[in-house]
Amino acid sequence: MRPNLIPDLDLAEHLFNMLRLRTFDGVGITREAYGPGERTAHAIVAAEAEALGLDVEADPAGNLLMTMPGTDPTLPRVVIGSHLDSVPQGGNYDGAAGVLAGLATVSGLRRAGFRATRDITVIAIRAEEGGAWFPTSFPGSRAALGTLPPAALETKRLDSGRTLAEHMAEEGFLPEQVRAGTSLLRPADVAAYVELHIEQGPVLDAEQIPVGIVTGIPGARRLRAARVLGEYNHSGATPRRYRRDAAIALAELASKLDDRWAELDAEGHALVATFCVLATAPEAGFTKIAGEAHFQLDVRSVAPASVDAMFAALHALVPQIEARRGVTFDLGAEVATTPTPMHPEVRAGLAQAATALGVKFREMASGGGHDAVAFAQAGVPAGMLFVRNQHGSHNPHEAMRAEDFASATTVLMRWAAEVAK
Amino acid sequence: MRPNLIPDLDLAEHLFNMLRLRTFDGVGITREAYGPGERTAHAIVAAEAEALGLDVEADPAGNLLMTMPGTDPTLPRVVIGSHLDSVPQGGNYDGAAGVLAGLATVSGLRRAGFRATRDITVIAIRAEEGGAWFPTSFPGSRAALGTLPPAALETKRLDSGRTLAEHMAEEGFLPEQVRAGTSLLRPADVAAYVELHIEQGPVLDAEQIPVGIVTGIPGARRLRAARVLGEYNHSGATPRRYRRDAAIALAELASKLDDRWAELDAEGHALVATFCVLATAPEAGFTKIAGEAHFQLDVRSVAPASVDAMFAALHALVPQIEARRGVTFDLGAEVATTPTPMHPEVRAGLAQAATALGVKFREMASGGGHDAVAFAQAGVPAGMLFVRNQHGSHNPHEAMRAEDFASATTVLMRWAAEVAK
Repeated sequence: MRPNLIPDLDLAEHLFNMLRLRTFDGVGITREAYGPGERTAHAIVAAEAEALGLDVEADPAGNLLMTMPGTDPTLPRVVIGSHLDSVPQGGNYDGAAGVLAGLATVSGLRRAGFRATRDITVIAIRAEEGGAWFPTSFPGSRAALGTLPPAALETKRLDSGRTLAEHMAEEGFLPEQVRAGTSLLRPADVAAYVELHIEQGPVLDAEQIPVGIVTGIPGARRLRAARVLGEYNHSGATPRRYRRDAAIALAELASKLDDRWAELDAEGHALVATFCVLATAPEAGFTKIAGEAHFQLDVRSVAPASVDAMFAALHALVPQIEARRGVTFDLGAEVATTPTPMHPEVRAGLAQAATALGVKFREMASGGGHDAVAFAQAGVPAGMLFVRNQHGSHNPHEAMRAEDFASATTVLMRWAAEVAK
Repeated sequence: MRPNLIPDLDLAEHLFNMLRLRTFDGVGITREAYGPGERTAHAIVAAEAEALGLDVEADPAGNLLMTMPGTDPTLPRVVIGSHLDSVPQGGNYDGAAGVLAGLATVSGLRRAGFRATRDITVIAIRAEEGGAWFPTSFPGSRAALGTLPPAALETKRLDSGRTLAEHMAEEGFLPEQVRAGTSLLRPADVAAYVELHIEQGPVLDAEQIPVGIVTGIPGARRLRAARVLGEYNHSGATPRRYRRDAAIALAELASKLDDRWAELDAEGHALVATFCVLATAPEAGFTKIAGEAHFQLDVRSVAPASVDAMFAALHALVPQIEARRGVTFDLGAEVATTPTPMHPEVRAGLAQAATALGVKFREMASGGGHDAVAFAQAGVPAGMLFVRNQHGSHNPHEAMRAEDFASATTVLMRWAAEVAK
């Protein structure tokens, strides 16, 4: 192991500034998946990779592969990266930090005269922000691996209403090749994938630790369009026993499920449960009892039993509240995902690198989903590094200290050099 | 007492049909206070009153007084009526039923050759629906009595943003005279006021009773712009102990206040408590913990102690929830009103009339506020008759059976004849 593996942090800083300048929307950062912001970000990154002398290719889905060739092209390669799209009015770091850490790594390896045996590919992935653009899981990274089911190409972008295939074609890419499973990366040809990403939560900051090594990505059970139906009535003229109040029925459900979460939390279950939206219908207003309310529920854990315990409580409470309050719950479609553990060898390799460098870290579950899931599910040994950040993610105030990015990128670089050497 | 006092129900039916035809908005009935719908309704009613040979006058605020003169103009007069405005997309009966019952009464008295000693004035009042148009209490009836505080003329209509004074002037009325307290009715010159109105609640229908005699109008304590402030965070990445979840804090408050109401209800307190609105902010969405929520709370009772018990619980819960959940409640302005009892003699007179006619009735508190409050607060002996109706009020489906309207109007007529005789 070479002693002086220092990532090219000036390069990363320059690219963060370029991305911020060119994709600022007046409030935050907007890099629409298969839209102008993401296109701009890919152009900035591709130009820099060309300047670094990397082999730059776009796959049929528009994912950008920027490769520093190794001495033995027959060996499976090392892939590092993340996505370049952002939510609307988001921050500059969610996604981009992983791509820029990758470029800082290969530039640093070049500068150090490091000769890798394996190819090291930095990947800039398309369309990761499923909640904001295409409501499907990781279409970019799955297309990059040739594992995207054709039906996903028909997913419609939430703002435009046009399909993923249409948007891909508009950006000059080749949805028909994606549909056929054509890709530049075969899972068997990837030795390992590591994604550096801002944490998105407050844990590292609260615990004063710069780096997290991810144990796994939780599974979830989710209700995105659940409703409570009661009856609109006059709030002054309707005694308690004649009410069918959707607002209070929903409040009771939410409050009692939260009580159940508190119990499970106290018992040591690691899960999160969130009523992301909880609202009376727009028709609600003063002097009316709410006849309708809607909610979104997001329950996640790396342990499926913990998620199931919450849904068991939900399904027990609903009929009780319906009977007592004369309302009807319509839970809508439930979307369930299974947890994805990160690969033990990759976790161990990252921990070894951090320990060798004296970088303080903790192991932790991810909160959100990430492209690493697509790699892991395709059978690629995958891992993730979290970087401490402030103010969460998906908002203009997301923050990441340069020194924390440097710490995490140095760990990434040492790990990549070790695997690719 | 004459045996054959039969209201002119054909006239009322004709006017209900005219009002429905001319103020139907495609979904329900819209009679905007100081706007086209109310103007149309006043024109229909005024024309009919002229045809009946009543003395028709508009006061400076545009309230319509339609008087059958008595033989002794020095005696305080009997006033019967209600308002002609409606909520947007409301029903045809809320308000109009009381005006049409008044016209059916005087037309019936005319036909019966009844000679009243006192004037009987049917009043069509402006702008009663404070929640829909001008958010102030009973500007029409208070102006009719010369008791409207000048500041109320500066209240802005919720949809137009223009003041009550501006809207009055646009309709051709005289806000400066209203400001000066000029009116056609001095409280001392009114012997009694009775307002017939649909019930707005389900009690009479559920109990199979056609008519209610109102004991009083409840007082209220209300929060119309209360908020909970927490912090937006990633729903997957933020463990329980780091959350400041506005949605669940509000759900807990609402649910626990509802538990307190259930206790008070079981102890015999007659009150209602409603979270009319309860909602995460528009910024809420999937994979976010809600950083803000808002609510409206409406607590009413004829017994102030019952209302106060709920607000005591509210003020005890808020700091507990704030401390436990890291959120801040901003309750906004509280608006309080005191209960208004109906006059015992008027109640007794109405009960006597109903009993004599064999009309089944029950005594009951009103749920909502009514113009009768303005009369009672001005010192006029006031009472109200409720008519059984289906589907509540303030919606296109409000319903009232013709035979129930007939029963209540017959009671009104007998009472008016007795007082005016």
